[in-house]
Amino acid sequence: MSLDPHGDLVALFRAIVDIESVSGNERELADQVQAALSGHDHLEVLRDGDTVIARTSLGRPERVVIAGHLDTVPVAGNLPSSIEGGRIYGRGSCDMKGGVAVMLAVAVATTAPPRDLTWIFYDHEEVEASANSLTRIAATRPELLAGDFAVLMEPTSARVEGGCQGTLRFTVTTAGRAAHSARAWMGHNAIHDLAEVLALLRAHQPEQPVVDGLRYHEGLNAVAISGGIAGNVIPDRATVMVNYRFAPHRSLADAEQYCRSVLPGYELTVVDGAPGARPGLDLPAAVDFVAAVGGEPTAKFGWTDVARFAALGIPAVNFGPGDPAKAHADDEFCLIAELFTCRDALAGWLGKG
Amino acid sequence: MSLDPHGDLVALFRAIVDIESVSGNERELADQVQAALSGHDHLEVLRDGDTVIARTSLGRPERVVIAGHLDTVPVAGNLPSSIEGGRIYGRGSCDMKGGVAVMLAVAVATTAPPRDLTWIFYDHEEVEASANSLTRIAATRPELLAGDFAVLMEPTSARVEGGCQGTLRFTVTTAGRAAHSARAWMGHNAIHDLAEVLALLRAHQPEQPVVDGLRYHEGLNAVAISGGIAGNVIPDRATVMVNYRFAPHRSLADAEQYCRSVLPGYELTVVDGAPGARPGLDLPAAVDFVAAVGGEPTAKFGWTDVARFAALGIPAVNFGPGDPAKAHADDEFCLIAELFTCRDALAGWLGKG
Repeated sequence: MSLDPHGDLVALFRAIVDIESVSGNERELADQVQAALSGHDHLEVLRDGDTVIARTSLGRPERVVIAGHLDTVPVAGNLPSSIEGGRIYGRGSCDMKGGVAVMLAVAVATTAPPRDLTWIFYDHEEVEASANSLTRIAATRPELLAGDFAVLMEPTSARVEGGCQGTLRFTVTTAGRAAHSARAWMGHNAIHDLAEVLALLRAHQPEQPVVDGLRYHEGLNAVAISGGIAGNVIPDRATVMVNYRFAPHRSLADAEQYCRSVLPGYELTVVDGAPGARPGLDLPAAVDFVAAVGGEPTAKFGWTDVARFAALGIPAVNFGPGDPAKAHADDEFCLIAELFTCRDALAGWLGKG
Repeated sequence: MSLDPHGDLVALFRAIVDIESVSGNERELADQVQAALSGHDHLEVLRDGDTVIARTSLGRPERVVIAGHLDTVPVAGNLPSSIEGGRIYGRGSCDMKGGVAVMLAVAVATTAPPRDLTWIFYDHEEVEASANSLTRIAATRPELLAGDFAVLMEPTSARVEGGCQGTLRFTVTTAGRAAHSARAWMGHNAIHDLAEVLALLRAHQPEQPVVDGLRYHEGLNAVAISGGIAGNVIPDRATVMVNYRFAPHRSLADAEQYCRSVLPGYELTVVDGAPGARPGLDLPAAVDFVAAVGGEPTAKFGWTDVARFAALGIPAVNFGPGDPAKAHADDEFCLIAELFTCRDALAGWLGKG
């Protein structure tokens, strides 16, 4: 079954949700998106790995980039999609296949925009930053990302969300001494030594900084823990992985320093990280967009690729269907009404002179 | 290369150590032990899974069981064996391939003992009690384990160690609520909730009860911990596995009750367990053995299959080469001198009228 970008928006959206595309398995969806975009005179369609890019080249003085990722977090018994009371449920329905559906529909329909457009459907967003396909493309073909303003279609409940929080992942490993568990006093238990680390994380009060007028909400959380050799051995090693989500007034280095201050005396090993992006809603391009789509901008809590565009000097905002609080939840869903709100707002703004 | 039970004891011991036999992978060693025992007129050799049993049937009024396990805990870069300053190093050198070597040598050399003998080389001792091959044999062919007295050749530094501590394994699982880690306040972190469990385990002071005149030394330790869904998800589940080693005045039910009192309010799920064995050194058969091999008996801390024989009504002691404090250590070793001490003591006692 192929995707029909000219047909019913809800049918298009459900078809996209029903093509499972957990990070690393985006190929089928990328193939179908590429096929749906092909054959339109106003679009040049490129493929790079499992990333599909469609561009107009009308010689306009400005270029807008609209981007969305194809991948999802692992399925949790929530596919295929279902519909109930004006909501579409299913893995990816919130984060962010609603945005993908809107992008496809508007890309094929907007044949003569006053600004040139670059539509980017990319892979590996839900995993470590180094695997994100935009990292590769920024390094190898940066001209494909170029533009004067960018819209990331991450879920925002169809409101403009400015900037994004950064993310840092690190491990804390405790070292003990192995011994037979029947003679525990001969060893030293590395798992027990994680007690204080977990207690510090549990007691930590996350900050809620205001940056450029928007209130962010940080978080410092264990996301994985492991340790143990055998059921009768005192473990000589245990590791907890921690994820720090930080407001965009901190650099990545500041964020790391902050984590060290919360866990004094422990050795932190950074696994990966990505800085956030300040809201930047005072920039002219952002002001234009906010005025066109309406509503009161708020802070974006999750890390998104607006940070990547910000780092390239391109102002960027988040705007897409789906309640961001439902991202990654087993019962994630998208309000059908928000699909249409976003489509109409985006098509209206892009079609304006 | 085959095992030569009539040759040099050190060479035999090293050959046994060098046949890797981590629990579940005992087959090759069992094959070689079976081959080494076969072809001796005084021994009937039986095979049950990867357990090898050799018996005399001389119509003696008493029967002694000598038992040792073939398996080891996982290898930690400590194979093949090495020799240094009168010690043989390598996985299993302490626990308990020295005992296996002594058993093989004495079994083939003791052709006309005054008591009938049953030599048991068994598998799956270093894992959960339900997988121990003696569990199966006690259920399906209990006559093979029958006897008037049993010697377990677990490492005791060539001294008699009475009884053994019991062991109980249980898990504590915490339940949270999954959410995107950028909006942690929407979820509840199950890993953080293990902080108190680990703190209670870390603060716990193990008891050292005196039972039948011997001092035991208990231990309550986390032996494994796990949790986490993905690097950007608040975990909704985390589990710690705990191993309680308890003195033999407690039943398995008492031991479980004790653990619940240490971790009040948490739900404990018992994984497996085995009661200990009281020292029982006042029994006539034990008194004879202690007098024959000499030395001052002490308490056995580790669980051993003396408990299994005790449960079958067969008095049993631990006696074997190797420092029990080195069991399962990466640098475990056996003193060569203890191999000969144990061989000579065992051969002398078994040969006596």
